[in-house]
Amino acid sequence: MFEESFLQAWELRYGAQPSAEYPELARFLNHRSVRTYSPKPIPESLVAALIGCAQSAATSSNLQLWSVVSVQDPERREKIAELAGDQDQIRNATWFLAFIADHHRIREAAGLVGEDAAGLDYTEFELMACIDAALAAERLVCAAESLGIGICYIGALRNNPDAISGLLGLPEGTFGVFGLCLGYPAEDANAPIKPRFGQSEVWFREIYPSDLSFEDHDRRASAFYDSQKMKGDVNWSMRSGRRVDGNHMTGREVLKEWLAKKGFGRR
Amino acid sequence: MFEESFLQAWELRYGAQPSAEYPELARFLNHRSVRTYSPKPIPESLVAALIGCAQSAATSSNLQLWSVVSVQDPERREKIAELAGDQDQIRNATWFLAFIADHHRIREAAGLVGEDAAGLDYTEFELMACIDAALAAERLVCAAESLGIGICYIGALRNNPDAISGLLGLPEGTFGVFGLCLGYPAEDANAPIKPRFGQSEVWFREIYPSDLSFEDHDRRASAFYDSQKMKGDVNWSMRSGRRVDGNHMTGREVLKEWLAKKGFGRR
Repeated sequence: MFEESFLQAWELRYGAQPSAEYPELARFLNHRSVRTYSPKPIPESLVAALIGCAQSAATSSNLQLWSVVSVQDPERREKIAELAGDQDQIRNATWFLAFIADHHRIREAAGLVGEDAAGLDYTEFELMACIDAALAAERLVCAAESLGIGICYIGALRNNPDAISGLLGLPEGTFGVFGLCLGYPAEDANAPIKPRFGQSEVWFREIYPSDLSFEDHDRRASAFYDSQKMKGDVNWSMRSGRRVDGNHMTGREVLKEWLAKKGFGRR
Repeated sequence: MFEESFLQAWELRYGAQPSAEYPELARFLNHRSVRTYSPKPIPESLVAALIGCAQSAATSSNLQLWSVVSVQDPERREKIAELAGDQDQIRNATWFLAFIADHHRIREAAGLVGEDAAGLDYTEFELMACIDAALAAERLVCAAESLGIGICYIGALRNNPDAISGLLGLPEGTFGVFGLCLGYPAEDANAPIKPRFGQSEVWFREIYPSDLSFEDHDRRASAFYDSQKMKGDVNWSMRSGRRVDGNHMTGREVLKEWLAKKGFGRR
């Protein structure tokens, strides 16, 4: 499934043709979120191999500021689904991985050799842990997709940070950054490639430009929403403007204070 | 170059054997940072294809909260190198990409349709932009490595955030999260695969455990430091403990206040 060619995927992303074709990169272009899965199992040994890929991603200063908690127990999956936006793919995924920003492991290790790890209070290390987790997750995703596995990130793992921490037994100095659903796609999975901004609005040469253009992307996004029967979404700017208006925070408005209690971003 | 098999790469990461072998995932295991490059060019059309891969990564709610500024001018490269830890790979990379956490584009777009984007002040959207940038970058990296290109992330892009912003012409609501050096590896590039924590200290089932063990990883890291003649680094815990002691922030101690001025993490 999902075997668009380089040119087909490029057309779906940009509504345009590339200046040159690199067919061997097609697999990296044809990512999409997959939310319905086939019963085909993913053996634990393959998950271990994928975790090995994740751990092979770059990590700042080799500090490895992330962890994974896999949740397979159906009752616990149900609880996570309820806490994270009631998304059925959390219930149904073959594997569910919670990616954790982790200052706990390094603080424990440092403590054993007499270091107090006081620098972890800095915002720098909050960002570093989130970036480490994301680099690891995306390498895992690229590896999984290369084998035909579908994925869906769950940003809503941040909707109820305190309850998620309780459920996963997370110690101070850790929090759930995002979830990741894994499973071979169902035969009838609706998983379209979504349009993105043209490269002229994302990739800048030497200097960030003073003028950006939204019309082409808005037009292509509108056509996509129509094709998906996403009613009420007129174009990307209106849809995204609502998403960032401060009235659609789904619990995440507490993060600054909550994270400070857990030791992140205090200074 | 860098064609370790699945089993060879696993041994270098973990000092152990996997429960099963997945040879087709070898390319994802054998990442390493590459800091010296051959003169072989990377054509602009290939960089465009790689940016297309980056843009094909998942992005939260399709908000696309990141951008890239490529810096090819040698004098500007020199300035970035000086600002970002005096790292020669910044000067010598075939391409240098600055990844930008970007609230500016969406704020502009929202403004044009009458939305004020007030929610972007929340810490949630600071994290989201950093995660979006990291997911995009790592997909680009996996794609580049699949073609034999070497990479090195530059976290030190955060060492002098104000000067970097000035150099790249970054507007309010944006900042340079990390840099990325790209180039085909030099024949004599010293780019070893580094050891990582065993999976039992990183991948947890259902619950984060109360006991973690550092000895195996410290022992393997020590052997690695010896092999690389990294004097003064006794083991991972001591090396990493120093890195997070608060006295080695290299300018990044200002990030919380500086980011708030730029519109990030205000509430």
